[in-house]
Amino acid sequence: MSPSSDTRERIVASARELIYTRSYADVGVAQICDAADVKKGSFYHFFPSKRELTLAVLDETYADAKTRMLDRAFDPQLPPLQRLHRFVELNAQIQAELFAETGVVPGCQFGNLAAEQATQDAVLRARVGVMLDRLQAEIRVALGDALAAGEVAAIDVDATAAAMLAYFEGVLLIAKSHNDPGVVARLLPALPDIRIAPAAAAG
Amino acid sequence: MSPSSDTRERIVASARELIYTRSYADVGVAQICDAADVKKGSFYHFFPSKRELTLAVLDETYADAKTRMLDRAFDPQLPPLQRLHRFVELNAQIQAELFAETGVVPGCQFGNLAAEQATQDAVLRARVGVMLDRLQAEIRVALGDALAAGEVAAIDVDATAAAMLAYFEGVLLIAKSHNDPGVVARLLPALPDIRIAPAAAAG
Repeated sequence: MSPSSDTRERIVASARELIYTRSYADVGVAQICDAADVKKGSFYHFFPSKRELTLAVLDETYADAKTRMLDRAFDPQLPPLQRLHRFVELNAQIQAELFAETGVVPGCQFGNLAAEQATQDAVLRARVGVMLDRLQAEIRVALGDALAAGEVAAIDVDATAAAMLAYFEGVLLIAKSHNDPGVVARLLPALPDIRIAPAAAAG
Repeated sequence: MSPSSDTRERIVASARELIYTRSYADVGVAQICDAADVKKGSFYHFFPSKRELTLAVLDETYADAKTRMLDRAFDPQLPPLQRLHRFVELNAQIQAELFAETGVVPGCQFGNLAAEQATQDAVLRARVGVMLDRLQAEIRVALGDALAAGEVAAIDVDATAAAMLAYFEGVLLIAKSHNDPGVVARLLPALPDIRIAPAAAAG
C-alpha cells in the first residue's frame, strides 16, 4: 500500500469517528487533520471539501456495517425471521460496545446525518437516502424469503421493510437521546413483529 | 404586553423556525437577531447563550405541539385507540403542511436536536430527554386507558409506549432523509398496532 492511500484512509477513519461521536458541523477540517496526523495540504489533495470527505465516510461506514453486522445478520443460510432477530441482537451489542468505548450512544451515522443535514444539504441527503435504502433492501430480502417460506402471513413486504427500518432508526435515536444503550436492548426486539398488511399499505 | 416580552418572544420564534428548518449548529446568534429584528445587546439581555435560548425554544416547541396536536389527539373524551389514530393523522398533516410551506420535511425538533447534540451537550440532551418522556407519557395514558377498556390484550404499557414513540421518531427521520412527507402518511398508520408483550419486556 502506498503512503498516499494510507493517508487517505487515515483521514476517512479519523473523520468517521469524530463526526459519529460529535456531529458534522462540530468537526472541522483542522481537527480531522490533527486526529489523522496529516497536513491540510494533504487533506485537500484527497478531498476538495469536508462534504466530499463525508461522502467517503458514508461509503466507509456502510462497508464496515456490511462486514460487522449486515453480512452476519442477513446470511441467506439462516431462516428468514432468524436474520431479523440477529440484526436486532448485533445492533444492541454494537451500541453497547460503542457506549463502553466512548461513553456515548452514537446511534446510527446515517440517521444522525439525515437529522442534522437533510434540510440543508441536498447532496448529503441524497447519499444518506441511498444508504438507508440499502439497509431497507437487506430487510426486504429477509421479509420476501419469510413470506415465501410461510414464516409470515400476507404482508406488504416493501412497506413492512420500510417500517422496520424506521423503527430501527427511531430506537437508536431514543437510545442516543437518553445516552442509554439499554434502550436498544429493551425496544429493538419488537422489530421483527412489525407488520404492514397489503390493504393498509394500499390505503 | 411590554416591548421587552415581545422582543423575547420574537427571538424565540425566530430561533425556533431557523433551527427547525436548518440545524442547531448552522444557526448563529447574529442570524437569529437579524430574523427577529433585534440587536445583539437585546439578545444577551434575555439569553446568556444560544444554548439557553435553545432551552426556551424546546419549551415553546412543546407548548405549541401540545396545543396544535397533543391536546387534540390525546383528548380523554375519545376512545383510547382512536387517540393514537388521531395522533398519526395530525402528524402526517403537520409534516405535509410544513413541507408545503418550507420545501423541506423538518421532522421532529426534539429528535433532530437529540441526533445532533446528544453526544456533545449533556444539558440539551437532558432537556430533549424530558420532552420525549412527556410525549411518551401522552401515549402511555392512551394505552393504559385502552388496556382498561379492553381495547388491547395484555401488553407492557410502558415498553409499548416507548416503542411507539421510537417508531414515531424513526418515521419522521426517514421522511426527512427522503424529504418526502408521503413517508409519514404511508408508514405512521402502523404505529397503533405496535405491541410489546409483558413477557418480552421482562426478558
